[in-house]
Amino acid sequence: MMAELSLSSVEKILKDAGAKRVSDDAIRELRKIIEEFAEDIGTEAVKVAEHAGRKTIKEKDIKFATRQY
Amino acid sequence: MMAELSLSSVEKILKDAGAKRVSDDAIRELRKIIEEFAEDIGTEAVKVAEHAGRKTIKEKDIKFATRQY
Repeated sequence: MMAELSLSSVEKILKDAGAKRVSDDAIRELRKIIEEFAEDIGTEAVKVAEHAGRKTIKEKDIKFATRQY
Repeated sequence: MMAELSLSSVEKILKDAGAKRVSDDAIRELRKIIEEFAEDIGTEAVKVAEHAGRKTIKEKDIKFATRQY
């Protein structure tokens, strides 16, 4: 799994964070990092839901996966 | 800053992670979490670039911000 998130949306986040200018490499690097982060949470959430006997991932599974419960 | 990333792209990441079905709330929760994560990295990268006397955020600033240097 890679490159599901659009470069323009990731660039917008960087601009919102105060960036005046952003290199293409920086946008791609941040996208890679947050996709890996999201994938890790997703993998954990799938396990959590399976453990609960469900096939549907719910909000509480995401929160549990990130230990925000 | 909120909701720059599309729900469909976040859902795709969850599906790629093995989710059979995903609730809308779960997708929105994961989007919120990864946007906050990305915003934190962006804020740090802006500071790192400013410290280096640059207005352009480069790949190395993202890596430095996430301590992957």
